[in-house]
Amino acid sequence: MNIDMIRAADARLAGRVRRTPLLSSPFLDDIAGKRVLVKPECLQHTGSFKFRGAWSAISNLTQEQGQSGVTAFSSGNHAQGVAYAAQQHGYPAVILMPSDAPALKIANTKALGAEVVLYDRHNESREDIGTQLAKDRNLTLIKPFDDPDVIAGQGSVGLEIAQQAAEMGIDSAEVLVPCGGGGLTGGIALALQADAPHMRARPVEPFGFDDVARSLLAGEIKANPTQSGSICDAILTVSPGPVTFPILQSLCGPGLVVSDDDALRAMAAAFTRLKVVAEPGGAVALAAALYQAEQIENDTVIAVISGGNVDANLFSEALGKYGI
Amino acid sequence: MNIDMIRAADARLAGRVRRTPLLSSPFLDDIAGKRVLVKPECLQHTGSFKFRGAWSAISNLTQEQGQSGVTAFSSGNHAQGVAYAAQQHGYPAVILMPSDAPALKIANTKALGAEVVLYDRHNESREDIGTQLAKDRNLTLIKPFDDPDVIAGQGSVGLEIAQQAAEMGIDSAEVLVPCGGGGLTGGIALALQADAPHMRARPVEPFGFDDVARSLLAGEIKANPTQSGSICDAILTVSPGPVTFPILQSLCGPGLVVSDDDALRAMAAAFTRLKVVAEPGGAVALAAALYQAEQIENDTVIAVISGGNVDANLFSEALGKYGI
Repeated sequence: MNIDMIRAADARLAGRVRRTPLLSSPFLDDIAGKRVLVKPECLQHTGSFKFRGAWSAISNLTQEQGQSGVTAFSSGNHAQGVAYAAQQHGYPAVILMPSDAPALKIANTKALGAEVVLYDRHNESREDIGTQLAKDRNLTLIKPFDDPDVIAGQGSVGLEIAQQAAEMGIDSAEVLVPCGGGGLTGGIALALQADAPHMRARPVEPFGFDDVARSLLAGEIKANPTQSGSICDAILTVSPGPVTFPILQSLCGPGLVVSDDDALRAMAAAFTRLKVVAEPGGAVALAAALYQAEQIENDTVIAVISGGNVDANLFSEALGKYGI
Repeated sequence: MNIDMIRAADARLAGRVRRTPLLSSPFLDDIAGKRVLVKPECLQHTGSFKFRGAWSAISNLTQEQGQSGVTAFSSGNHAQGVAYAAQQHGYPAVILMPSDAPALKIANTKALGAEVVLYDRHNESREDIGTQLAKDRNLTLIKPFDDPDVIAGQGSVGLEIAQQAAEMGIDSAEVLVPCGGGGLTGGIALALQADAPHMRARPVEPFGFDDVARSLLAGEIKANPTQSGSICDAILTVSPGPVTFPILQSLCGPGLVVSDDDALRAMAAAFTRLKVVAEPGGAVALAAALYQAEQIENDTVIAVISGGNVDANLFSEALGKYGI
């Protein structure tokens, strides 16, 4: 896993991925007391950065592998990213989703051309079912984060940040990244090391699900005790993986941890000041940038909004609490 | 007023204006039954395209004029665009606002560095007060639309659309534009005539405030009977102006007219499928693209979202009615 893989992925992504802008608002600068730039990957195809990693991995398959089909286990952003990237390649995709996933997510994944296979998450193991399915139907599994091709695709966000910041005359910053398994954070960290060596990536997680922050402190992989209990569903991963953790360990600054409530506040701030829609997990880095500025040394902070797939009710709740 | 002025404005805007992306979603294509691209100027500085025209006009002042100060009459998007563009130039700005304007809008305009002068809109004429103020304090008035420098700045949206669509292999489309006084629509129409001659701009207005559509049909300037009564406040202008109307008349296709309710539906669609925040007036072109597709001949429609400055309550109302 190295920068060459990220540059190669970036070349495969050219013209297929959306180059999201770097946004800013003097009102956000005022809240943080420093310069705040925001990379809104909620504007990416399928509403999250996951499309990048999915495209990177799928575009690197042989024609034969691709035509045989791809698969993923996910009820969320990764599912939609894989489904759409496969559809754009003309490859079949089979997405394994829990039978109690929201009907809208199932419908969206089908609408993006995927076959959805449901399983009972209380009585069945998705790994067992998925592995069997992949074997029986000769599908290639696209992992959500612990895969070099996927990480390489997510790293293209870091290349864009480095270039866009340089165009604004900025070469030094802390780059805060919503962190689940570490694919996006790790990819960005590698890209920054190469193209913006005075920038440092830092993972941001929700309270109670700070496996990466604790793993970085401990110097070894730590897991979260539970898998639910935060509204930041997109980033509630059990632990970083054997591929992502060493990257995070060697390149990233200390993790930051934010409350669900601050994620809602940041969603409202993104609505009012940037006019973009962030989902709770996607808003944690912006929350840290705005409300934990004392933990950030640099005068400039760049926050990634990793996704915007939030339902109308929860978004209205954020606006009801913190909107103006 | 010609394309050279737009290119000159675009050069002055380079690096100062945000180049907004062209967004899309297969789900929006399905609703319209055609290819839908969206130019989200809600992501522009100050949350609307108005920053472009303001920057264009202010950057064209002499240093002496600028340092003496600029003024504008507006309680909305134009006020914020002028205030921020003046602040970035280091020029004083005096914005004349009705004393019953929302406190937040007054606070925002002040926070962008402007001096706000309030007037009683029931008993005072803003034109009289503004003219006197401009004279007494030697301020340059930045008009909201009927000024060649302002139109030239808004036209930069059209240059970007032409270039971004060409990069996607698209050279023919109908380009729908939310239309108040016609500065944005006219500027885009001029830019398309030069750089994308197979594209045609069409103004979109709210029911009951279709002065431009009626003016185009009549071949002469028509006014709206009333000035309030739609949630699309940003585009409730009385009539097109002597500078904008001839441009619209010579270059634009027939106007489209949408209901307030369809504007709310389009706001919810932009939330769910594009992850951007549109204000009601900013969403009318997207509404026409999605819900009046039968009135659009071309297989490709490009809808401009002109702004996103909507308060949390109204946005939640749109989501409550049409969100998923």
